[in-house]
Amino acid sequence: MRRAFDPTVYLVTDRPLCGGRDLAWVTAEAARGGATLVQLREKEASTREFLKLAGRLKALLDPMGVPLVINDRVDIALASGAAGVHVGQSDMPWRDVRRLMGPEAIVGLSVDTLAQAAEAENEGAVVDYLGVGPVFATATKPDAGAPLGLDGFAEFFKVTQKPLVAIGAVTERNAEALFRLGAAGVAVVSALCAAKSPRETAARLRAASQGLDSIPDYPRFLRG
Amino acid sequence: MRRAFDPTVYLVTDRPLCGGRDLAWVTAEAARGGATLVQLREKEASTREFLKLAGRLKALLDPMGVPLVINDRVDIALASGAAGVHVGQSDMPWRDVRRLMGPEAIVGLSVDTLAQAAEAENEGAVVDYLGVGPVFATATKPDAGAPLGLDGFAEFFKVTQKPLVAIGAVTERNAEALFRLGAAGVAVVSALCAAKSPRETAARLRAASQGLDSIPDYPRFLRG
Repeated sequence: MRRAFDPTVYLVTDRPLCGGRDLAWVTAEAARGGATLVQLREKEASTREFLKLAGRLKALLDPMGVPLVINDRVDIALASGAAGVHVGQSDMPWRDVRRLMGPEAIVGLSVDTLAQAAEAENEGAVVDYLGVGPVFATATKPDAGAPLGLDGFAEFFKVTQKPLVAIGAVTERNAEALFRLGAAGVAVVSALCAAKSPRETAARLRAASQGLDSIPDYPRFLRG
Repeated sequence: MRRAFDPTVYLVTDRPLCGGRDLAWVTAEAARGGATLVQLREKEASTREFLKLAGRLKALLDPMGVPLVINDRVDIALASGAAGVHVGQSDMPWRDVRRLMGPEAIVGLSVDTLAQAAEAENEGAVVDYLGVGPVFATATKPDAGAPLGLDGFAEFFKVTQKPLVAIGAVTERNAEALFRLGAAGVAVVSALCAAKSPRETAARLRAASQGLDSIPDYPRFLRG
């Protein structure tokens, strides 16, 4: 049986953006505030460091019921017992990821084109959700393509029934518009990792998903 | 049953050292000349590129009966169906590698201290062979420790029964001395990747393992 998961407030980690704060603290705070899913993304770490980090995050997230997904690396996911893997277009092909991770794992795929989304849709349950972006212009991933905007994001609902997670410069200010369009979740990098209070920011993102119009103004401590 | 393998002439790949030549060509030539085992090592490639390279090398080595081992990445090994994984001290811990790769895989471990070798020895068949080095001063891996020299290499036979593969600036000139000490193999990076003829160099390394004193002088085309 497929593992249940809720991508509503999806923290995607970025250690440099944590500004010297411990990633485990940022992650725990985000989860306490309402993050529902965490993706550990490490592009520079050695395999051993990456695995240690995965173990630390899993140990703190498991008791909170928040699944941990590993970016790109099936080996790290398997060795750490993480709940799943998220891959992009230059990572392991998603059919291989599903084959190696087994039927219970969460498998997510980043898509930038409708064709990529349609291809995953046509293979049924291999991929569990799609990360779609960049929805807005982002400083975190300078190599990302031109932003889709809200209209571009909405196009993806025409080609797939899978849960769509919006990514790319998502903040407390623009999250609600994405949820109103039908996003199953928002993947948030800098707005959480660099937040003064990741807990409060996660709580406001969670509130945005509930259609609450109670998001207070907040200081401009976010990058980008 | 454990897969049979012969580490006598062990090519460890380094694409930059191939000097613009296709790695598949270098690998095929080395195997034709007598390389008995190949380790694909990629530190910069994306997972997708790495996997493609692994697939290409496996396809050319399988018909020649030369097993392919993947450096560090269990995910690449599993997805490509490679014969094994070689890990160092900052890669995945070797007990995890064996657990994920299963009992038939070739699992190799780089050690730089006698204590590391003894630890692997004490756990029986988890690790199949040890890479010991650097035996000589190397330009390929500037972060490697001080060279062991022949005497330092010989110390490792006192703490382990496992096949020992010498690594670190091994060339046609010094390979025979290592075999005479009892090395099960020599792991060769630049002396094969940068060789004018990887085939001829592999043949001479193979000859060195057979105690032949017929190694002709050769031009100084090797780096380092």
